Amino acid sequence: MATVPLLGDEEASADALAVFDEIRTLRQTDYVNNFWRSLAHDPALLRATWERLKVVMAPGALDPLIKEMIYVAVSTANGCSYCVHSHTAAATAKGMTPEMHGELLAVIGMAAQTNALVTGLQTPVDDRFQANPE
Amino acid sequence: MATVPLLGDEEASADALAVFDEIRTLRQTDYVNNFWRSLAHDPALLRATWERLKVVMAPGALDPLIKEMIYVAVSTANGCSYCVHSHTAAATAKGMTPEMHGELLAVIGMAAQTNALVTGLQTPVDDRFQANPE
Amino acid sequence: MATVPLLGDEEASADALAVFDEIRTLRQTDYVNNFWRSLAHDPALLRATWERLKVVMAPGALDPLIKEMIYVAVSTANGCSYCVHSHTAAATAKGMTPEMHGELLAVIGMAAQTNALVTGLQTPVDDRFQANPE
Amino acid sequence: MATVPLLGDEEASADALAVFDEIRTLRQTDYVNNFWRSLAHDPALLRATWERLKVVMAPGALDPLIKEMIYVAVSTANGCSYCVHSHTAAATAKGMTPEMHGELLAVIGMAAQTNALVTGLQTPVDDRFQANPE
Amino acid sequence: MATVPLLGDEEASADALAVFDEIRTLRQTDYVNNFWRSLAHDPALLRATWERLKVVMAPGALDPLIKEMIYVAVSTANGCSYCVHSHTAAATAKGMTPEMHGELLAVIGMAAQTNALVTGLQTPVDDRFQANPE
Amino acid sequence: MATVPLLGDEEASADALAVFDEIRTLRQTDYVNNFWRSLAHDPALLRATWERLKVVMAPGALDPLIKEMIYVAVSTANGCSYCVHSHTAAATAKGMTPEMHGELLAVIGMAAQTNALVTGLQTPVDDRFQANPE
Repeated sequence: MATVPLLGDEEASADALAVFDEIRTLRQTDYVNNFWRSLAHDPALLRATWERLKVVMAPGALDPLIKEMIYVAVSTANGCSYCVHSHTAAATAKGMTPEMHGELLAVIGMAAQTNALVTGLQTPVDDRFQANPE
Repeated sequence: MATVPLLGDEEASADALAVFDEIRTLRQTDYVNNFWRSLAHDPALLRATWERLKVVMAPGALDPLIKEMIYVAVSTANGCSYCVHSHTAAATAKGMTPEMHGELLAVIGMAAQTNALVTGLQTPVDDRFQANPE
Repeated sequence: MATVPLLGDEEASADALAVFDEIRTLRQTDYVNNFWRSLAHDPALLRATWERLKVVMAPGALDPLIKEMIYVAVSTANGCSYCVHSHTAAATAKGMTPEMHGELLAVIGMAAQTNALVTGLQTPVDDRFQANPE
Repeated sequence: MATVPLLGDEEASADALAVFDEIRTLRQTDYVNNFWRSLAHDPALLRATWERLKVVMAPGALDPLIKEMIYVAVSTANGCSYCVHSHTAAATAKGMTPEMHGELLAVIGMAAQTNALVTGLQTPVDDRFQANPE
Repeated sequence: MATVPLLGDEEASADALAVFDEIRTLRQTDYVNNFWRSLAHDPALLRATWERLKVVMAPGALDPLIKEMIYVAVSTANGCSYCVHSHTAAATAKGMTPEMHGELLAVIGMAAQTNALVTGLQTPVDDRFQANPE
Repeated sequence: MATVPLLGDEEASADALAVFDEIRTLRQTDYVNNFWRSLAHDPALLRATWERLKVVMAPGALDPLIKEMIYVAVSTANGCSYCVHSHTAAATAKGMTPEMHGELLAVIGMAAQTNALVTGLQTPVDDRFQANPE
C-alpha cells in the first residue's frame, strides 16, 4: 500500500537497524512501527527524523502528553490518517482519557470552523494582536 | 480588507450588540475584536459561534491554556493568519511563556514534517493503532 | 507584493493583450484584474487558464451564481485570500444577497468542523455511501 | 479502522441514543451512519454537532441541495474522504444529477487550480474587491 | 470505493473511449488507469483534463522527470493519496532513483516544517523578496 | 506583524548570533532574512532548523535549483506566502528562468486541479501503483 516496501529487520541496512534498536530501547518494546520501516530506505533521513523527534517530544516546558495532543491536532488539520492513528495511540498510552480526547476533538473542530469563517470573511488582524504593530 | 465591513457598535443590530456585550462581560474588557465585528452581519451565525466557543474553551478535562495552544496548532496547520495572531495572543494572556511558545512551534513544525513524510511514503496504518482492527 | 510584476497593457505581449481584450469584451468592463496581469508573463498559461475558466463557469446544469459560491467555498478551504475576495465580489455581482452569503459561510464553517471531527476520529466510510461496494 | 470503536445502539449512552433517534426520525430511516456512531463516545459533542447541523443545512436563502454541493466542495478541498462520500450521497439523494455532479467537480478543480496559481504568483488583491478599501 | 463507478471500455461513451485510446497510444500501453475511468462519466471534463495534462507535462524548459517530482510534491502537500501513488510510479518510470526519491521526500518534509514555523511566527515578507516592493 | 518581534543583531543571544554569522558566511551576504530573525527567540530551534536546512538543500542526487523549485511547489500548496516569496527569490538566484517559472506554476496548478478531481471522485489506487500490492 506504501510507495516503498516496508523493510523488516533482515532487509534494513546496518545504519537503519541501529535506529530501530534505539527506538526499541527508548520505547521499551520490540515493536518498530511502519513509519520507521518505510523511512528505512533512506537511512540518513531516518536517522535525522528520529534524532529530531526525540528532542522535540522530550519533557520540557510542555508535558509529553500535551505535545502528543498538539501532534494529533496538527495531523488532523493536515489530514494525515497514519499520524492521527499513531499519535492518538501515543497520547492514550501517555494518559489521555476519553474526556480529554473528546475535548481535544471539540477544540480541533471549533478551530477548523472559525478558521474557515475568518478566511471567508477575510477579517483583518487587530493591531493589538501584533507583536510589531506598524 | 475584509469581504464585509466591520460593524461598529452603532452599526450592529440589537441581536449582534447583545453578543458584543456578553463578550465584554465575560472577558472583562471593552474591546471587541475584529472577528466578532465581521461576523455581526449575520447575528444568528455570530450568536451560534459565540455560544459554542464559550462551551468548548471553558475549563474541563483540559486546561484553557492547553486549549489555546491546540487552537494555535490547528490555525497554523490551516494557514489562518488572523487565528494564529488572535490565539497566540490569547495563549500568552493565559500564561504561555516564551519557552512554551518555542516548544509549541517545534512540535507543530515536527508534526508538519512527519505528516508530509508519511503522506509521501503512503505508510499503511499499523494494526495496533486501530481501535477496531479488521 | 507579487512574485512577478503585474503587467500593464503597454507591457503585455500581443498574445497576452488579446486575452485582456477578450476579458474586457466578455465582462463588459475596461478593468482587467490583477490575476490576469500577473499571469501575463506566461501568455500560454494565461490563454489556457482563461479559455478553461470561460467553459467551466458558463451556465449549464448549475447556475453561474451557484458556481461562484462553490468557488468561494473551495477558495476558503484552500486559504486563498485573493480568490476569496475576487469570487465573493463576483458572486455579489451575480446576485448573492447578504442572507445567502451568511448561509454560505455557515455551511463552509460547518463542513470544516465536521471534516476535522471525522479526520480526528478516522471514521470508516459506510458501505452504502460507496458507488462500488466491495 | 477508527481511533475509537463505533457504538451500536446497545452500547450508546441514553443521551447518545436520544440523538440517534432524532436522526432516524428526521431522516425517516432506521440507518444511523458511522459519523454519529463514532461521535457517540462524547454525547455532548454529538448533541452539539447534530443540533447545529440541523440548523445550518435546513432550507433558507439557499436550497438544501446547493448546501450539500457546497459541503462536497469544502470536504474535497479539505481532503476528507468520509465527508466526500457521505455528502455526495446526500446531494444525490436530494436530486443532484450526473450533469450537476460533473459541473460541481469541474468548478472544484478549476478553483483548486487558480487558487494554486494565485498563491504561486502572490497576486495582490485589487482595491475594488475589498469591502473596506484602505 | 469511488463516488462513481469506474467505467470499463465497454461502458464508456464513444467520446470517453477516444480519450482512452489516445492515452494508450501516447503511453504505449494497454492499461488505462483508474483516474481516467472515474472521470469518464463526464467525457468533456475527461477530454479537457487529458488535453491540458499532455501540454503541461511535455518536455519544455523543465524535464518531464522534474515535472513528475514537482507533481509528487504538490500531491503530498495536498494529501492526495491516489496522486502520490500514481506520480511516484510515473517518476520512477521516468528514471527517479531511490536516492532522488529520498531527497525529494527530505525537501518536501523540510518545506512542510518551515512552512509551519513561518505560519506560526507570522513572519513578514522581506522587501527584497518582492517583485513590486511598495 | 509577526507573533514575535524580529530580533536585530544587537538583540539576539550569542547562540542566535552564531547562526546568523554562519548564514552570512555560507550565503556570502550581510543580509539575514526575517525568518531567521523571528526564529531567534528560540536559539535551539533556530540552530536545529538551520543545521537541517543546510543538509537537505545541499547538492546531491538532485540539483539545488530543482530543490528550490520543489520547495516553491510545497509552499504554494501549503499556502505559505512568506515561503513562496523567499524560495521563488532563491530559485531565481540559482538560475530559474521566466520560462522555468511559468512551467513550474503550470505543473503546480495542474497537480492542484487533478488532486481535487481525484479527491472529489475518491478514485481507488490502481494495484500496479502500489509497492506492496495486497
